[in-house]
Amino acid sequence: MNFTADVYISLKKGVVDPEGEATKKALNLLGFRNVKSVSSVKVFRIELEAKSREDAEKMIEEMCEKLLANPVIQDYSIRWVD
Amino acid sequence: MNFTADVYISLKKGVVDPEGEATKKALNLLGFRNVKSVSSVKVFRIELEAKSREDAEKMIEEMCEKLLANPVIQDYSIRWVD
Repeated sequence: MNFTADVYISLKKGVVDPEGEATKKALNLLGFRNVKSVSSVKVFRIELEAKSREDAEKMIEEMCEKLLANPVIQDYSIRWVD
Repeated sequence: MNFTADVYISLKKGVVDPEGEATKKALNLLGFRNVKSVSSVKVFRIELEAKSREDAEKMIEEMCEKLLANPVIQDYSIRWVD
């Protein structure tokens, strides 16, 4: 069976987000003064084959722990795409 | 009024995704052979003040056209966070 998941990689609370801060400054400079905050999130859309959704979820968690997310500064979450 | 939106910046169909391809190769090398494809998407979570959601949407579209998305190779979409 084929499954597609969106894996969201975001920074943990309290970790500085240079890309988000630089984007906010640039938007303010462009005249968008009403922008209060900007945070950046990475999303990987992964298509994979698996026997079941539970199997697919286990594999994606393993991929996050081994490669996609740095456990010290990042959190990850999985959303299934139907 | 305060609004929060997730702005998804993705590559247009047919545009090469080096980050997605490199991530797929690395996952396959780590033993995740069942991964068929990986595509990368950038998400900016933006908090802003506006008189109405329509106003907020117009401003975010302008931000995408002026800064966040490259119209030649990228598409953008807006999802509101309640």
